[in-house]
Amino acid sequence: MIITREIKITTSGELDFINITEKIDDIVRESNVRNGACFIFTKSTTSAITIMEFEPGLVEDMKNMLNRLIPKEYNYEHEKKWHDGNGHSHVRASFLKPDIYVPIVNGSLALGTWQQIVFIELDIRARERTIIVQIIA
Amino acid sequence: MIITREIKITTSGELDFINITEKIDDIVRESNVRNGACFIFTKSTTSAITIMEFEPGLVEDMKNMLNRLIPKEYNYEHEKKWHDGNGHSHVRASFLKPDIYVPIVNGSLALGTWQQIVFIELDIRARERTIIVQIIA
Amino acid sequence: MIITREIKITTSGELDFINITEKIDDIVRESNVRNGACFIFTKSTTSAITIMEFEPGLVEDMKNMLNRLIPKEYNYEHEKKWHDGNGHSHVRASFLKPDIYVPIVNGSLALGTWQQIVFIELDIRARERTIIVQIIA
Repeated sequence: MIITREIKITTSGELDFINITEKIDDIVRESNVRNGACFIFTKSTTSAITIMEFEPGLVEDMKNMLNRLIPKEYNYEHEKKWHDGNGHSHVRASFLKPDIYVPIVNGSLALGTWQQIVFIELDIRARERTIIVQIIA
Repeated sequence: MIITREIKITTSGELDFINITEKIDDIVRESNVRNGACFIFTKSTTSAITIMEFEPGLVEDMKNMLNRLIPKEYNYEHEKKWHDGNGHSHVRASFLKPDIYVPIVNGSLALGTWQQIVFIELDIRARERTIIVQIIA
Repeated sequence: MIITREIKITTSGELDFINITEKIDDIVRESNVRNGACFIFTKSTTSAITIMEFEPGLVEDMKNMLNRLIPKEYNYEHEKKWHDGNGHSHVRASFLKPDIYVPIVNGSLALGTWQQIVFIELDIRARERTIIVQIIA
């Protein structure tokens, strides 16, 4: 059995970190699946999904490290042709990837105590985003 | 139901980026699966799979960033023992990982407008590569 | 069909790399699944799962690169509030991610010749860890 659901979110701009755990947890509960696998996928080349402790300090640390590792100011080839100012957004997204898997055990997402599922807006402006959630059971 | 298929590709050498979306799309169409999950896995320690807009500028940007973050010239311990010149290839592959997930919705890969599934050759020479594609429905 | 199993491991401290391939292979064999998909997930915000050639030189190279890319000594906001000294552990884990997928073909993990599934302890001390393994067939 496969259940497919869409989540729509509106981001506030670059490096908006959004905790989507509760939205996914709602889908899991409504599915009544006791034992299964949950897959999450963001349908864009300038956003990513990861898992982290959703704590303001760590959100800042993730932002700082993204800025440090894959800086905004860099000689991006993408920029030379498209002039949309988001070469770094694309590269960050391809490193972080759009997908994550979380097991479902005893009817709930089997997350560790501090694990939250987090959407990261990597583009340079506010966007409407579509996230696909699938449950296999 | 699980369908398992193999894709064989020949790469041209280090940092060959190959758009494999169409090959995977063909497998999805032949499966006649309307609603399912697709998983892609490269069977090697010196290659990776990611998702990106497959645009020449961004391919260059990804190459530049890989060279910058995990440089070829570095004091790799792997090199000291094995002398095969690909320590950086292994480290890049372990950071980027060999796997990706894409949902299947209404009989097609549910990719965003610009999302393409891309194989990255990280080894220092042309290779024959095997990619496993599984569809769960 | 979904099979869910837990693996418990004890790590020796920061940057302990543990080859968990055999443990997962045991679960696959006991399942008698011939054709399926295997998903592995670490239930913590300061550890990760990846795939690599499990060779002492490469383990050192991965440690060096983690220390270089996401250094321990850095002005972590997480540290300012929580003083637990593991801001870098969290950021590393969110970049590497807690999950991996491996196909099962002909009753075995369809790993390449040198591919091993590796748990990485990113926290600053020895920990008890829980890894969830799911097989879908």
